[in-house]
Amino acid sequence: MKIDVIPYASAIRPDLIKNRNVVVIDVLRASSVMVTALANGANAFIPVSTVDEARQKAVIFQDKEILLCGERDTKTIDGFHLGNSPQTYKRGKVEGKTLIFTTSNGTQALNQLKEAAKVFIGSFLNMKALVHRFLELEDVVLVCSGTNNNFSMDDAMCAALFIDKIMKKKTVLLSDLSITLLKAFQKDNGNLPLLLKDCYHLNLLKRNGFGEDVDYCLQKNISNIVPEMKNGRIVKAN
Amino acid sequence: MKIDVIPYASAIRPDLIKNRNVVVIDVLRASSVMVTALANGANAFIPVSTVDEARQKAVIFQDKEILLCGERDTKTIDGFHLGNSPQTYKRGKVEGKTLIFTTSNGTQALNQLKEAAKVFIGSFLNMKALVHRFLELEDVVLVCSGTNNNFSMDDAMCAALFIDKIMKKKTVLLSDLSITLLKAFQKDNGNLPLLLKDCYHLNLLKRNGFGEDVDYCLQKNISNIVPEMKNGRIVKAN
Repeated sequence: MKIDVIPYASAIRPDLIKNRNVVVIDVLRASSVMVTALANGANAFIPVSTVDEARQKAVIFQDKEILLCGERDTKTIDGFHLGNSPQTYKRGKVEGKTLIFTTSNGTQALNQLKEAAKVFIGSFLNMKALVHRFLELEDVVLVCSGTNNNFSMDDAMCAALFIDKIMKKKTVLLSDLSITLLKAFQKDNGNLPLLLKDCYHLNLLKRNGFGEDVDYCLQKNISNIVPEMKNGRIVKAN
Repeated sequence: MKIDVIPYASAIRPDLIKNRNVVVIDVLRASSVMVTALANGANAFIPVSTVDEARQKAVIFQDKEILLCGERDTKTIDGFHLGNSPQTYKRGKVEGKTLIFTTSNGTQALNQLKEAAKVFIGSFLNMKALVHRFLELEDVVLVCSGTNNNFSMDDAMCAALFIDKIMKKKTVLLSDLSITLLKAFQKDNGNLPLLLKDCYHLNLLKRNGFGEDVDYCLQKNISNIVPEMKNGRIVKAN
């Protein structure tokens, strides 16, 4: 199995993802929100790039079953129903709803993947289920969303965990970046708090009062949900 | 000291390098060629992006003291005096000469750095001298040239060695990518043959008959030359 990694969203190029099976990783927090909300009964996410686009889409739908969700600068957007804290996506709020979703990094990546074969969402929360899904697929491009068009170590170490797990199940061909991330991950034996203690985005979230979100998002394998993008919507994979 | 890393040449953006002190790293082999040739008495390199541009510049100079140098697809370009094998840049060939130089990756990076404060050339060969030069500078952006617009682990591990060495001399503030490369480097205790054994570009060079070049380029601290870009030319730093 061929494994490539794209280091951050703005490094996506059409030739890197065309007809490839892609996993989009935005650990803090878009991926974790999607896994959590779909597990709690949300129908689908509609990822959009801008706040204006989100508001326009909500008007078009004119539907009580729509929620406006997302963040800018880590914080809930004015007038939106939900921000980017996964634990606020509770069953009572999201069950049966379609969520129009815009974030600074994760949804930017998603909207550049129209030529991919399949697009899944990866996080620590659903890693085991994600790896299981790739047992029958022959290639993967792991897209680390990053932060503000830069490399973010939380996403990279999630990609590394995927590589670490899948290579115990099947033969892999690793790109240079895949090898590098895996070695970094192994250096601290996959100990996430140790690996990520000086990570920029993680510490920004903590400073902004989202320490509980960070702790939540770094849990491994608490969900069997694998979100998949189909026709521009993120839904539970079959 | 603030340390940032750019993972490959096409990821250079003006905002990332403007007024910053930059080190361009193309271990295999442009950086190693420049260090070696300047140590052997070459006057200067003039880096250009295309083969045509190199030939045009040679015509303009119309000078016996000019050599055309560089590679495409790892091999010497038709009609050029020298390829990209550092050990062919012997004193007898390069002393007193100005070298018009075009390579697939390293010279592409150099021509995007016009807004940087200072631009140095880094390799394993001159690492100690390079680190010494940064003792008095307060920031650095390490530009890994990469291979064909992708991340290349040889350049990344050279960046990691710089970080490993400089942080023993002064206090550093590391970006997420800097931390990641350093951890990968430390995983194998800086053992380059072990770290790089599955590296794409290194193995391509070996397959193309350049195994001796690889062995040469992975030697640490055999030269005190720090090449610096001044007015579009690469010369020995004062």
